[in-house]
Amino acid sequence: MKCIFGFDIGGTNIKIGKFVLEEGEFKLALDYYIKTIISDDYHDLLIQIIDEIDNNLNDDELYGIGVGVPGPVVDGVVLGAENIHFGEVDIKGFLKEKYPDAIIKVLNDANTATLGEWYYGDGNKASSMILVTLGTGIGGGIIVNGKLLKGATGSAGEIGHIKIFPFNGRECTCGLSGCVEQYASGTGIVRTALGMMNNGNTVIKNKKRIHAKDVFDGAYQGDKICLDVIDKTGYYLAIALADIADLINPEKIVIGGGLSRSGEILLESVKKHFASLCFYTVKNTEITLATLYNTAGIMGCLYAVSVDEEE
Amino acid sequence: MKCIFGFDIGGTNIKIGKFVLEEGEFKLALDYYIKTIISDDYHDLLIQIIDEIDNNLNDDELYGIGVGVPGPVVDGVVLGAENIHFGEVDIKGFLKEKYPDAIIKVLNDANTATLGEWYYGDGNKASSMILVTLGTGIGGGIIVNGKLLKGATGSAGEIGHIKIFPFNGRECTCGLSGCVEQYASGTGIVRTALGMMNNGNTVIKNKKRIHAKDVFDGAYQGDKICLDVIDKTGYYLAIALADIADLINPEKIVIGGGLSRSGEILLESVKKHFASLCFYTVKNTEITLATLYNTAGIMGCLYAVSVDEEE
Repeated sequence: MKCIFGFDIGGTNIKIGKFVLEEGEFKLALDYYIKTIISDDYHDLLIQIIDEIDNNLNDDELYGIGVGVPGPVVDGVVLGAENIHFGEVDIKGFLKEKYPDAIIKVLNDANTATLGEWYYGDGNKASSMILVTLGTGIGGGIIVNGKLLKGATGSAGEIGHIKIFPFNGRECTCGLSGCVEQYASGTGIVRTALGMMNNGNTVIKNKKRIHAKDVFDGAYQGDKICLDVIDKTGYYLAIALADIADLINPEKIVIGGGLSRSGEILLESVKKHFASLCFYTVKNTEITLATLYNTAGIMGCLYAVSVDEEE
Repeated sequence: MKCIFGFDIGGTNIKIGKFVLEEGEFKLALDYYIKTIISDDYHDLLIQIIDEIDNNLNDDELYGIGVGVPGPVVDGVVLGAENIHFGEVDIKGFLKEKYPDAIIKVLNDANTATLGEWYYGDGNKASSMILVTLGTGIGGGIIVNGKLLKGATGSAGEIGHIKIFPFNGRECTCGLSGCVEQYASGTGIVRTALGMMNNGNTVIKNKKRIHAKDVFDGAYQGDKICLDVIDKTGYYLAIALADIADLINPEKIVIGGGLSRSGEILLESVKKHFASLCFYTVKNTEITLATLYNTAGIMGCLYAVSVDEEE
């Protein structure tokens, strides 16, 4: 049967999905992780992809391959992806040579996740939608007029680097400071918690090392300091989301990424602050939690190969 | 001959353009201002428009009417425009009743200006462009994938309300605080100047009332304080533009509006700071000054009626 492979490449793991055409619909048949090979020769990782396809194709016919990579992509060429030690690499060209008959789509990983959540998840195919992914960092993607916004150099949707503290803000890994990523990501939550944990009694005080999850757990248990940290986080995130809504006026904002799994409490805070931070005309923008979680990326690959006609 | 009327409605004046089809091209034949009638009955203003058309149509055939209004617009209906005392008004419906055979396009005024600068001005029909208009306030419009971004409720492009000081920022007319409009508009420049005029000797110290133009004039004369004010203004604006570029990754950012007429010195400052504020992948975004000035709005009306096929 016809099949599509989706690869969601991260710095630690590659999430792989194999979709097989059954009764007119591509259905997820295989869904697994492998460890990402990080090497100074990008061929190693690309060969890893090819091996996974060849080993799992079985008797199926390869219809297409979708790849999400952690870096800006233009026309199938990733311009650079530090996490996986890639400089400029023509991933599409490489795969096309090996599989000339397959449809090959290579996109930024935040964009594949956005397409997945939009088309198959809580985005509900809205005419415009923003996905914000909260994990170690903050990423995102933008759908406008029913299409992914890629940007002039493949770099649209860098939501994590919206400045919420342009003056004397926390230093960011991007080299600048005050980026929302340093306030509302997992890393940001921990930084905020470390700054607030001595304000009173709290369950996180006894931890050797605090993780964002500890703060969420504490908040759900009613720990006052943890609740404060989450509310502050919601406020920080709402500043960036208000800027985004003022600019783009999307139908929906979807909060995804690892942190969104325990996100109800954060969502409530974001919603509350959002309405008090954005221009009155966009106050009613719907904000929801993502539903596909880690599957969003490979579902976006499926969309890119099987539905989207754009190159 | 076939003709198109463009109306750029502001709170003080209405700029009117009449374009006549000559040798296959609509050319600007009339170009004038009238005072806006502000009344509690919106019909007064709409009748003012009709009168101008009827009085200036002469023997020409009315091909279409484009209208730019200072408020969010969805499907030809303005949802509200405080400056002209409009609530929700179906402008398109009203004009269509009077001129059933004409193409009628009603858009937000920042959007008509954006279309004008994009198609006929320095936007050069780029696949993506942001127009930021600096006047008493700050407005803007967004072109992506070669199309105007209207937003889910007709409100995309509210650039003036991006928060550059979310904490303890200057109060804004929108009811919130820290909006870039309060820092980089004419009003913002004056506020900054008032705060800095006692830092040393400056030509603006003797003025009874300072206008943004005085600050620009001083800066061009080499006045140190005025130069500092303009540089600070450029920095403030660059924060918002960096956020926009991080999000949308446009090919071009065009600075328009009244202030852009004396804008070279501001542009230099914006460019310098922009590169140090945005994510590295969008550092090379082109930033230029608008070229159409006050004509941008009516040119955008012309575009909407004669080129754009969208409703």
